[in-house]
Amino acid sequence: MILTLDQANKIIDGALAAARKHNANPMAVMVLDAGGHPVAFQREDHTSLYRYDIAKAKASGAVGMGMNTRIIAQRASNNPVFFGSLTTIDGLNLALSAGGVLIKDTEGRILGAVGISGDTADMDEACALAGITAADLNHGVE
Amino acid sequence: MILTLDQANKIIDGALAAARKHNANPMAVMVLDAGGHPVAFQREDHTSLYRYDIAKAKASGAVGMGMNTRIIAQRASNNPVFFGSLTTIDGLNLALSAGGVLIKDTEGRILGAVGISGDTADMDEACALAGITAADLNHGVE
Amino acid sequence: MILTLDQANKIIDGALAAARKHNANPMAVMVLDAGGHPVAFQREDHTSLYRYDIAKAKASGAVGMGMNTRIIAQRASNNPVFFGSLTTIDGLNLALSAGGVLIKDTEGRILGAVGISGDTADMDEACALAGITAADLNHGVE
Amino acid sequence: MILTLDQANKIIDGALAAARKHNANPMAVMVLDAGGHPVAFQREDHTSLYRYDIAKAKASGAVGMGMNTRIIAQRASNNPVFFGSLTTIDGLNLALSAGGVLIKDTEGRILGAVGISGDTADMDEACALAGITAADLNHGVE
Repeated sequence: MILTLDQANKIIDGALAAARKHNANPMAVMVLDAGGHPVAFQREDHTSLYRYDIAKAKASGAVGMGMNTRIIAQRASNNPVFFGSLTTIDGLNLALSAGGVLIKDTEGRILGAVGISGDTADMDEACALAGITAADLNHGVE
Repeated sequence: MILTLDQANKIIDGALAAARKHNANPMAVMVLDAGGHPVAFQREDHTSLYRYDIAKAKASGAVGMGMNTRIIAQRASNNPVFFGSLTTIDGLNLALSAGGVLIKDTEGRILGAVGISGDTADMDEACALAGITAADLNHGVE
Repeated sequence: MILTLDQANKIIDGALAAARKHNANPMAVMVLDAGGHPVAFQREDHTSLYRYDIAKAKASGAVGMGMNTRIIAQRASNNPVFFGSLTTIDGLNLALSAGGVLIKDTEGRILGAVGISGDTADMDEACALAGITAADLNHGVE
Repeated sequence: MILTLDQANKIIDGALAAARKHNANPMAVMVLDAGGHPVAFQREDHTSLYRYDIAKAKASGAVGMGMNTRIIAQRASNNPVFFGSLTTIDGLNLALSAGGVLIKDTEGRILGAVGISGDTADMDEACALAGITAADLNHGVE
């Protein structure tokens, strides 16, 4: 099973609907497939320029490490030397903050990840979760 | 005037509608703003992996050089040494083929560019033009 | 369905068995999954150093473009300006020579690609095909 | 004396046998020669994508600095500014965590290094040591 463009668009629509409902700052939302390749991306008006890169790095980190970036960021706080070194490895992108969330099917297999940047890490992550739920997919967060 | 997310989404929707109408291969469509930064991207199912990079490089080349990639590719054919050297400059991406088209407002100012990869260069470009037209914007191609 | 390590190892074993049977030069063999990520790699003794990079680029190009590198190389011969520009795009690797072959399941879906470098392009490709066949997978070449 | 492909394969087989015996998470194992070039690599099924990059960076760091990454990581904890600066040097990759182990011959000469990523740093390193021992080579760890 692959993540379809239709599913990716629904994730983005759901995430941005949640952002507008919460009156969040303008957001950038990237959806990657299980191989870490972009399926869909949208950046709201008046978003600052690096939001694309940060959203992509959050999604990349989640799918690359196989866990949500909230957990990766917690581990990095406890081991900054190791995670700092990881961020510099060629071809490996990490944004050590919540807002990168795995997308899973009903059997728990990883289909990809969504990464969001624009507001606080908590708000970014809440919108990512809302988007995945809106697309009838799972994120594995209780 | 800036290119809005709403306009970028309309361009992609129009381009993909044209692709489906012509029964084209699955396509990747990138829309960049006037600063060369991604506003929206969609990749149809079963598109090969490099289509993202090629679509982005086509749009980058158009907005970076201020002309459509069809014209850039023609010039490159006549002067391959110079354009070959351009492609290797750090941070500069060019895909020397049609399918990267400038997006202009009614007064001819550049708002950004759309880049498409997936089918022949001619088909990619035709869908890019269709998308810009569908968004009530201009591409300056007669 | 994913390409398993067991399948990847069988592909490499089959490819190297073919290389030894034909008394080919020492070879490097890379197997990538459908997302372009390494599953297994082996480099025979006395192989020159760039063989790793070339084998990886051949496999990358095949899975990235969705076709065998023999076909990509033929197209590049007819359009060197475009394919030359592709080789310089950040994050995109191409080795414009035969020896990068798609790995497909029985229903024709792409599972990944194998890339080989060490002898002539024809010998490299013949060993890649032999490896895929030895693993009971398909390469789609008549 | 060079590290042969046969030795590299034995190291990987021994490391993965140890991983399965200890019921470890799925692992990626990279073996580099004394010049830092890949000889063999295997990634177990269901390993997250960055494990390849991290395993390679661990092995690279060990052979590049001439010591096991456990020691490098300890030094980095005491001098994070210096080691942080090292990680950003072009072409130099370090993963500041245990799991990158030098491969030595019976006279203590460096033949290469193995890098493993997938479980805890301690487990990764234990499997690396087991693999080197299984290949009748030395790792210099008491």
